[in-house]
Amino acid sequence: MWKYRTPGIPDEDFNQNDKVPGPTKEEIRVLTISKARLREGFVVVDIGCGTGGLTVEAALQVAPTGKVFALDEKEEAIELTESNVAKFGVQNTVQMIHGKAPQVLSDLPPLDAVLIGGSHSLREVIQTAHQKLKPTGRIVVNAILTETAVTALDEIKRLNFKEVDVTQVFVAKGKAVSGGTMMLSRNPITITSATKE
Amino acid sequence: MWKYRTPGIPDEDFNQNDKVPGPTKEEIRVLTISKARLREGFVVVDIGCGTGGLTVEAALQVAPTGKVFALDEKEEAIELTESNVAKFGVQNTVQMIHGKAPQVLSDLPPLDAVLIGGSHSLREVIQTAHQKLKPTGRIVVNAILTETAVTALDEIKRLNFKEVDVTQVFVAKGKAVSGGTMMLSRNPITITSATKE
Amino acid sequence: MWKYRTPGIPDEDFNQNDKVPGPTKEEIRVLTISKARLREGFVVVDIGCGTGGLTVEAALQVAPTGKVFALDEKEEAIELTESNVAKFGVQNTVQMIHGKAPQVLSDLPPLDAVLIGGSHSLREVIQTAHQKLKPTGRIVVNAILTETAVTALDEIKRLNFKEVDVTQVFVAKGKAVSGGTMMLSRNPITITSATKE
Amino acid sequence: MWKYRTPGIPDEDFNQNDKVPGPTKEEIRVLTISKARLREGFVVVDIGCGTGGLTVEAALQVAPTGKVFALDEKEEAIELTESNVAKFGVQNTVQMIHGKAPQVLSDLPPLDAVLIGGSHSLREVIQTAHQKLKPTGRIVVNAILTETAVTALDEIKRLNFKEVDVTQVFVAKGKAVSGGTMMLSRNPITITSATKE
Repeated sequence: MWKYRTPGIPDEDFNQNDKVPGPTKEEIRVLTISKARLREGFVVVDIGCGTGGLTVEAALQVAPTGKVFALDEKEEAIELTESNVAKFGVQNTVQMIHGKAPQVLSDLPPLDAVLIGGSHSLREVIQTAHQKLKPTGRIVVNAILTETAVTALDEIKRLNFKEVDVTQVFVAKGKAVSGGTMMLSRNPITITSATKE
Repeated sequence: MWKYRTPGIPDEDFNQNDKVPGPTKEEIRVLTISKARLREGFVVVDIGCGTGGLTVEAALQVAPTGKVFALDEKEEAIELTESNVAKFGVQNTVQMIHGKAPQVLSDLPPLDAVLIGGSHSLREVIQTAHQKLKPTGRIVVNAILTETAVTALDEIKRLNFKEVDVTQVFVAKGKAVSGGTMMLSRNPITITSATKE
Repeated sequence: MWKYRTPGIPDEDFNQNDKVPGPTKEEIRVLTISKARLREGFVVVDIGCGTGGLTVEAALQVAPTGKVFALDEKEEAIELTESNVAKFGVQNTVQMIHGKAPQVLSDLPPLDAVLIGGSHSLREVIQTAHQKLKPTGRIVVNAILTETAVTALDEIKRLNFKEVDVTQVFVAKGKAVSGGTMMLSRNPITITSATKE
Repeated sequence: MWKYRTPGIPDEDFNQNDKVPGPTKEEIRVLTISKARLREGFVVVDIGCGTGGLTVEAALQVAPTGKVFALDEKEEAIELTESNVAKFGVQNTVQMIHGKAPQVLSDLPPLDAVLIGGSHSLREVIQTAHQKLKPTGRIVVNAILTETAVTALDEIKRLNFKEVDVTQVFVAKGKAVSGGTMMLSRNPITITSATKE
């Protein structure tokens, strides 16, 4: 259980396994949740939930009256996210969906925020997200591939999203070693976010 | 007014002036608040509040029952922070203190979190913070100088703080220009945080 | 005059003016010249020479028997590069060309290295560069726009260049201030380089 | 053999083994050699030569009339550097020295450049380097630990070195993966360089 109101659960507190990527690293998770601009009662979808890091953090922000739909194509990701949802006590706020993004997305109710962690059909997913978002709803795309960052931004601009923000983040973490503190780099992430008009 | 539960008020939403540095940039503010691990009811001090960016974000997390003491040596910073506190409607949660850090700090009640944005007497401030922090209380030091980061970490380790975390953050922001998106760098910040045993 | 064999002329040693961008910052210039893999006698083109920073550094590496063609559309850039070429005494190694990249490029002799600092017709320029490069010749594209980096890489892969290298560089420079050393960030640059088979 | 005049041998071209750290990554090697400002005939020492990456690159710049002393405490590093020196054909330019830095350094002839990759007695090593450097000679310290960077700068300023430069470098390398290009970060390095008056 996370007993704080601020996002930022340490990475090691999540159940993890080798078959599923993630969790999204703590600092990137915190910034992603911030860019989504959440509050209690909001309805959110986490596309490609993986380990469930973003799902859990989003759920803690929108609970108890809000809802997070956690979506993944992989059975293993669904199971792992479920275990983390249980670990952090947000079962009543999260609904798991095993399926592919653009299709499943269109069956969801109107959304306040869409979190996208990369996808094979990124443009379609962003288009469907745009349709499903309520006015003033937020989209946040996390890209680890340079091409994904450029495609996401291009599609977001094409759909006339407003308040477009592109934030590239490099994080290095200090590790105590003999003689001092070694900085170990994380891979850079580009977080692209915007508001539906 | 900030209507979301997640931290991350855009920089331009704060009143600003040329005499006072800040606000701490949005992404650094979000990560700082996250590292402080706040919740409703917590008592926090923001040492060197400047424009009041961290003060306001912390107040939104601990309100309505918590308290943020916003401390600065400069009269102009006190006034500017006050204007931002009013702008975001957290007057009942914030108490302004005009004075120097190690002295004023010792008069405060027990604290859940101490935010330090650099100081002339950093070691003394960290020592006093350590005395004032409740068990499991958090300290977060933001350094823009390389020497400050090293000194803060050294003093934090010397005082046997636990869960010591050193996070260096480089952020670049996309700016739409003719032909595409230019990435504009922010200066790197080192955020050092830890828990009092 | 630069009296060393290693590249790395300090930025402030170049004549500069407000009408022309550049010079390419010292560290990026050094890495660009390194990725071009130059030696005495090589024939190089610098497309979009601007202030002439890369032109001068390349000329120092290929002199006295090599040649650098310095190309720019802007009269002011031609004049400024010429003044820096004279300042560093590489007039006999550099030939200035006032004109547009894809057209002028096709009139040049076979090339050992092509340096590209961004262009309006980037794909065409890369295609023409590919035609003009000798076998084992090198292409180096410096991108300040995210889209340019992605387009350059895509075209380089499409043309079957080998040894493709993508290097993103973030540099922060220390500045002595009261109390210590403040790190000031430069904007990130993506250097994409490859070898013609 | 490296047939170019510019530094920048690919990392994988060096013999490597698990007992010895390095080589210093290509981009950092290139910038280090650049900050040392070398030319033919110069006398250089590489303190803590490890795999020999900097030794070989420096030798290629000062050959055939210059000299590089490659120093390491570890027998394995001496052997590995020797194998790379042979591989790149710079045996006549390099002299291996098995021993500890401050002691061995004082027996060397006057030096044009000193390269330091971190050391247990960093202040003493910098002091001895200062004594051994010729006027206008260069010192370059590469730090992977935050404390090393701060200590090196402090000692360099204390000894009244001129043209002090602090450059922190974050490099991410593109890796082709399914769907695009993933950026993989290298750890940040701080390169501190200066000129003896």
